[in-house]
Amino acid sequence: MISKELKNNLSGSSWVRKMFEEGEKLRAIYGADKVYDFSLGNPEFNPPVEVKTKLKEIVNSDISGIHKYMNNAGFSDVRLKIAENLNKDLISPLGEKHIIMTCGAAGGLNIVLKTILNPEEEVIVFAPFFGEYKFYASNYGGKCIVVPTLKESFQIDLDLFEKSINEKTKAVIINSPNNPTGVIYSEDILKKMADIIDKKEKEYGSYIFLLSDEPYSKIVYDGIKLPVIHNIFKNSIIINSYSKSLSLPGERVGYLAINSKIEDIDLLFNGLVFANRTLGYVNAPALFQKVIADCLDATVDVEAYKERRDILYNELTSLGFSCIKPEGAFYLFPKSLIEDDVEFVLKAKEFNILLSPGSGFGCPGYFRLSYCVSMETIKNSLEGFKKLAEYYKITN
Amino acid sequence: MISKELKNNLSGSSWVRKMFEEGEKLRAIYGADKVYDFSLGNPEFNPPVEVKTKLKEIVNSDISGIHKYMNNAGFSDVRLKIAENLNKDLISPLGEKHIIMTCGAAGGLNIVLKTILNPEEEVIVFAPFFGEYKFYASNYGGKCIVVPTLKESFQIDLDLFEKSINEKTKAVIINSPNNPTGVIYSEDILKKMADIIDKKEKEYGSYIFLLSDEPYSKIVYDGIKLPVIHNIFKNSIIINSYSKSLSLPGERVGYLAINSKIEDIDLLFNGLVFANRTLGYVNAPALFQKVIADCLDATVDVEAYKERRDILYNELTSLGFSCIKPEGAFYLFPKSLIEDDVEFVLKAKEFNILLSPGSGFGCPGYFRLSYCVSMETIKNSLEGFKKLAEYYKITN
Repeated sequence: MISKELKNNLSGSSWVRKMFEEGEKLRAIYGADKVYDFSLGNPEFNPPVEVKTKLKEIVNSDISGIHKYMNNAGFSDVRLKIAENLNKDLISPLGEKHIIMTCGAAGGLNIVLKTILNPEEEVIVFAPFFGEYKFYASNYGGKCIVVPTLKESFQIDLDLFEKSINEKTKAVIINSPNNPTGVIYSEDILKKMADIIDKKEKEYGSYIFLLSDEPYSKIVYDGIKLPVIHNIFKNSIIINSYSKSLSLPGERVGYLAINSKIEDIDLLFNGLVFANRTLGYVNAPALFQKVIADCLDATVDVEAYKERRDILYNELTSLGFSCIKPEGAFYLFPKSLIEDDVEFVLKAKEFNILLSPGSGFGCPGYFRLSYCVSMETIKNSLEGFKKLAEYYKITN
Repeated sequence: MISKELKNNLSGSSWVRKMFEEGEKLRAIYGADKVYDFSLGNPEFNPPVEVKTKLKEIVNSDISGIHKYMNNAGFSDVRLKIAENLNKDLISPLGEKHIIMTCGAAGGLNIVLKTILNPEEEVIVFAPFFGEYKFYASNYGGKCIVVPTLKESFQIDLDLFEKSINEKTKAVIINSPNNPTGVIYSEDILKKMADIIDKKEKEYGSYIFLLSDEPYSKIVYDGIKLPVIHNIFKNSIIINSYSKSLSLPGERVGYLAINSKIEDIDLLFNGLVFANRTLGYVNAPALFQKVIADCLDATVDVEAYKERRDILYNELTSLGFSCIKPEGAFYLFPKSLIEDDVEFVLKAKEFNILLSPGSGFGCPGYFRLSYCVSMETIKNSLEGFKKLAEYYKITN
């Protein structure tokens, strides 16, 4: 009845669904306020005031034609504003023709991979990684090559990276600040990656695209400055969304920014716009394109996320969890208290705590905790984490 | 640099782009009011007042959490409202689990084809047809089998249809009211199609899905009642959008309605939701799901479209164009005045009239005229059509 490949993928991903359904059951039994759901990256925060104000302004002004189709690449004025905003940090500036509005970062990654991948070509990802990348690549006949990061630091292992590149390599996906670890890749490491890619492109006479998936680029702590990808790489494409930075995940709006240093940029641009159209996205939602265009410097309250990070990080490490301190995004990625992370996550559920096993991110033995939740949820969950830690102390 | 398949498709579809660019050039030279653009199905009308009112109500009420992720299938309450609205006409009623909110009909068709197609399986379409179907099927390794309709009437040729089905047939796409002809398939013809599909499914022991692409279902003239697909077929899926019925094409909101008579409906539903997630749509835009849910009986001004149909139909036929009178949608599909429809459309451009050649719909020798434009555009274009007709009278 349904496609064989999809049926296989479906059964492989069914535990995520099961976890979600288990969570729903727990909420029905104990009440939503007694279930501590750290399993999803669905921001609890409402969008910043700038977004709300702009949205009301546009909707109440009755501008004609605001909901119509536009160019499949998005509204020209919106694309120009995004380019100009990015140009503040760029050595080689972008224009309208380097920006394509997308249905979030997930839509953006899909149209890039659809555009560049021939069957059997390879996409390098670094574990732990956002599990959906595997599906995005296989949608277009591509194959994810999973390269582990360094133990403890979760930074790129440059030797392993270099060895994983071959003549079939078409793209490398990085995600910094990282989901699920919160790690930021340093400028030094990125420059070394760029040198490796450059060398390998020459060796194979190929294009190897650096795809930078950056939905967490505005959620950075402790004064760290994010390295500017397009200044470091040549064949790079930024994939971004307003899901996290403006707390608009349900509205599906994001963009691609193509490095202006890429040769034959018109072919790439036309290919991406064609993919955006024929994959059925057609265009990013019209109203929210206009909304975000005037909120490019707005962000959600990053200090509030930092506060949540600090409480949970301090609490969990004091309970004996081993965990790297996140520099960005809104996830903790601690070591599981037992080897089997799925069993650990199922045990946490007994304390009404919902987590995601590291296996879903290509990194067994860990778990992900998403702290884009209310402070109340965090505070009320602490007792449960304590009991969970005690349980394993007693058991071990 | 880009995928070989995409590069080929791109060059094949470049005349559409060229036409669009030519139109832009004309507008720059003569002014937008002197260029009569009938090439796109981009409704000139604003959304009906119910939509505007609801949108303002939601946006101004500051409801918390309205822009968050929801279940990948869409908001439960929205899906239930759509099911109940459809149930007024259905023998076998639908519930929440039969509805999936999608990014328009284009997104809906893509997730259905992704879900059901194995490589090399076939999708039957009836020419003339919406040209994008070919790309939607090939995105997932499928193949469109183009079956011509009956000369003059553009109705389904049942004999040809039956002969085109084989063991590889996985789906049949119908689009009624039809883009580009405006034809509606009668209940009698659809019932005979259902019998043929039923017989062939038994013969091959296969599933053959009837996919009804219905974005024009609310734009129907002369009191005609549209046959109810789910009452006629068994393995049917409705693909609909609010792009045309509520003039919201840029907002990308639509839905799938799965026939409740389908066996193993949970597998199909889960597959579709998985495809919606992993193709990167994630979910239909949140705010507009909530907006349309309370506007299910609203429509754009169908009388205004009828007025446009009548003027253009009467004018063109009086000029000697041969054309079927549309029963729905907002397109005319007249015979080209010369065999080469692309050449004809290029000639029309000289009179500042932008049309689409029938070749783009698998039906050379015709052209499509989209009349979802202002009455002013129509009236001002008539002189140009007259000159165009005269030109060919003189030339022939």
